[in-house]
Amino acid sequence: MATQCSSFEVQGACGRARAGLLSLPHGEVQTPAFMPVGTRATVRGLDNADIRATGASLVLANTYHLWVRPGHRLIEKLGGLHRFMAWDGPILTDSGGYQVFSLRDRLKITEEGVRFRSVEDGQYRLLTPEVSIEIQEALGVDVAMAFDECLELPADRDKTLKSTERTTRWLRRCVEARTKPESTALFGIVQGGLEADLRVAHAQEIAEMDLDGYAIGGLSVGESREHLLAMAEVSADALPNEKIRYLMGVGHPHDIVDSVLLGVDLFDCVLPTRAGRHGQAYTSVGRKNLKNAKYSEDGGPLDPGCGCGTCTTYTQAYLRHLVKCDEMLGKRLLSFHNVYFYQALLRDLRSAITDGDEAAIAGIRAMAVVASARV
Amino acid sequence: MATQCSSFEVQGACGRARAGLLSLPHGEVQTPAFMPVGTRATVRGLDNADIRATGASLVLANTYHLWVRPGHRLIEKLGGLHRFMAWDGPILTDSGGYQVFSLRDRLKITEEGVRFRSVEDGQYRLLTPEVSIEIQEALGVDVAMAFDECLELPADRDKTLKSTERTTRWLRRCVEARTKPESTALFGIVQGGLEADLRVAHAQEIAEMDLDGYAIGGLSVGESREHLLAMAEVSADALPNEKIRYLMGVGHPHDIVDSVLLGVDLFDCVLPTRAGRHGQAYTSVGRKNLKNAKYSEDGGPLDPGCGCGTCTTYTQAYLRHLVKCDEMLGKRLLSFHNVYFYQALLRDLRSAITDGDEAAIAGIRAMAVVASARV
Repeated sequence: MATQCSSFEVQGACGRARAGLLSLPHGEVQTPAFMPVGTRATVRGLDNADIRATGASLVLANTYHLWVRPGHRLIEKLGGLHRFMAWDGPILTDSGGYQVFSLRDRLKITEEGVRFRSVEDGQYRLLTPEVSIEIQEALGVDVAMAFDECLELPADRDKTLKSTERTTRWLRRCVEARTKPESTALFGIVQGGLEADLRVAHAQEIAEMDLDGYAIGGLSVGESREHLLAMAEVSADALPNEKIRYLMGVGHPHDIVDSVLLGVDLFDCVLPTRAGRHGQAYTSVGRKNLKNAKYSEDGGPLDPGCGCGTCTTYTQAYLRHLVKCDEMLGKRLLSFHNVYFYQALLRDLRSAITDGDEAAIAGIRAMAVVASARV
Repeated sequence: MATQCSSFEVQGACGRARAGLLSLPHGEVQTPAFMPVGTRATVRGLDNADIRATGASLVLANTYHLWVRPGHRLIEKLGGLHRFMAWDGPILTDSGGYQVFSLRDRLKITEEGVRFRSVEDGQYRLLTPEVSIEIQEALGVDVAMAFDECLELPADRDKTLKSTERTTRWLRRCVEARTKPESTALFGIVQGGLEADLRVAHAQEIAEMDLDGYAIGGLSVGESREHLLAMAEVSADALPNEKIRYLMGVGHPHDIVDSVLLGVDLFDCVLPTRAGRHGQAYTSVGRKNLKNAKYSEDGGPLDPGCGCGTCTTYTQAYLRHLVKCDEMLGKRLLSFHNVYFYQALLRDLRSAITDGDEAAIAGIRAMAVVASARV
């Protein structure tokens, strides 16, 4: 198709795990990949040079937040989101739906879309598939996500089925609403709650629409780790092999590694930056809380094996001091380390997949399990 | 003197304004110079690479804050303040006195020193000339400031005289208390409130002690700009020509330029970083408040003439967006610009002094007046 601006190539595999290359208007992304979250057109605590230095090549921004502040039309007028945030690499936006569904009390869901009152400015707004695509295209991002219904769990089978059907209808409207397929790709989202067969059916149904990529949605919302991985597995298996698979909102390092081993290629999560702002660091020896007094006299780095600027420059004693004093630099240095840690994890995993090195993959998985647990 | 670790050379002059070179154990500082303030061993919002990129070569840290958290003995154990904050350039610390005197209610001043309760940990502490020097030497800084009595203004002549006399006695005790003159220089501080003749007498008295440098203290505490400059002038005039002169806690760009023209060489102030955290930017067209709606659609830089990373990369619309959303990156980018602006101001001023270019100096002064006023 001449108007497609995105392509994906599986370049290597080991079991179900894939090493791929996602090509987007603003650059290429080696997968498996992790997107740091830049909610309001900034990845909290990092500037663009920092983001590059972590190894990240694709960032996620939140449609809802940019719609409300400063407004997608203003960003469009100023040359689009890339120019606005001065990030020349690829950007993916969510549909805005997740944030809207999180504001439960003022919410009214109809077939048309979702009517709600935004807490930021008290204004009533209507988010529909058409509006979501309009905003994302105005932002000029590389990848727009389809507007889906975010089902609250637990949900019964009938409700889940109806929600999945509505998500498909909304997806068709998203496809219809596109006006810039040559510059903004569209990924569809598999729903189906915790019903494996509904997920399979939904994945197969939307796969027929031959979109640029497919996401697995409705997870990482409080369900158990077993449910998360089981639903990721059935969803990934039912999606076409030649398209990128994105598991939204995941997650802890070991959840990411396990999902890659189930055939997922792309991830986003606020955890590394949020943890950094709260004084926590993901390391190869566990998730550290720098508020802990045991680091107060520690002249060593966060993670001796880490090559990031935080670990090669600063001691844990200094980082703890910054955290205890609530200094901005502490949040920044820890956020930087955490995003770097995630990027290094996925880079190592990609390398092991490409090499078909199962022992290396097992080692990375074991490390990710350790890194995800508090010490 | 074989044990001196600091030297100062006047390399050029224009009227009373001087261009000098301060040599310290961790490097050289071209003067006139502005020190960004790193209260808790971090210049708020900036990392060390940022500080270097602003052009700053000397940073100030606060003895009081580091004494209370994390403690000077811990920092000494970890290799000193330079290693602790990973800053390999020169560091100057204040004596701790100013912070202690700011905590008025629990304060008891005797000839021995100042007894107080620290708000951070509720502990009673005694700060004396000996303790102040001990802390600063333990931190291993390039320049320690003498422990002086910070007189509250307004003060009558008798009280001012007595305070100045005590400051001299305390200064002698500071000199006696030194154990590392080969690695930490000592600057004395001229006091004398708003009494010109007392300042002259005090400056002459401490000048005889042949210290590494001299500061002008007790100003920038709420007095008028006329008082500030008048007292800076008489103090600077009474100090030896061959020693560096440091005006503590100053200030706005035009106060700094006017003080340089009165013969002052060194400055520190929290204004550029504090203003940055509050959404304000010093520019050649005035002090801007980025919260102002007029910047919301402005696709231009903060200051078209500025070469800093903030101005060459980001629009005012984006900076305003970050400020409105209270994002860390906004505080960081504005703090960076402001410190860069101060450094550029003093670099330009030094160049004009070296060239004896009075027209250029007048131009810089006019710009600094504009930069200090709100727009």
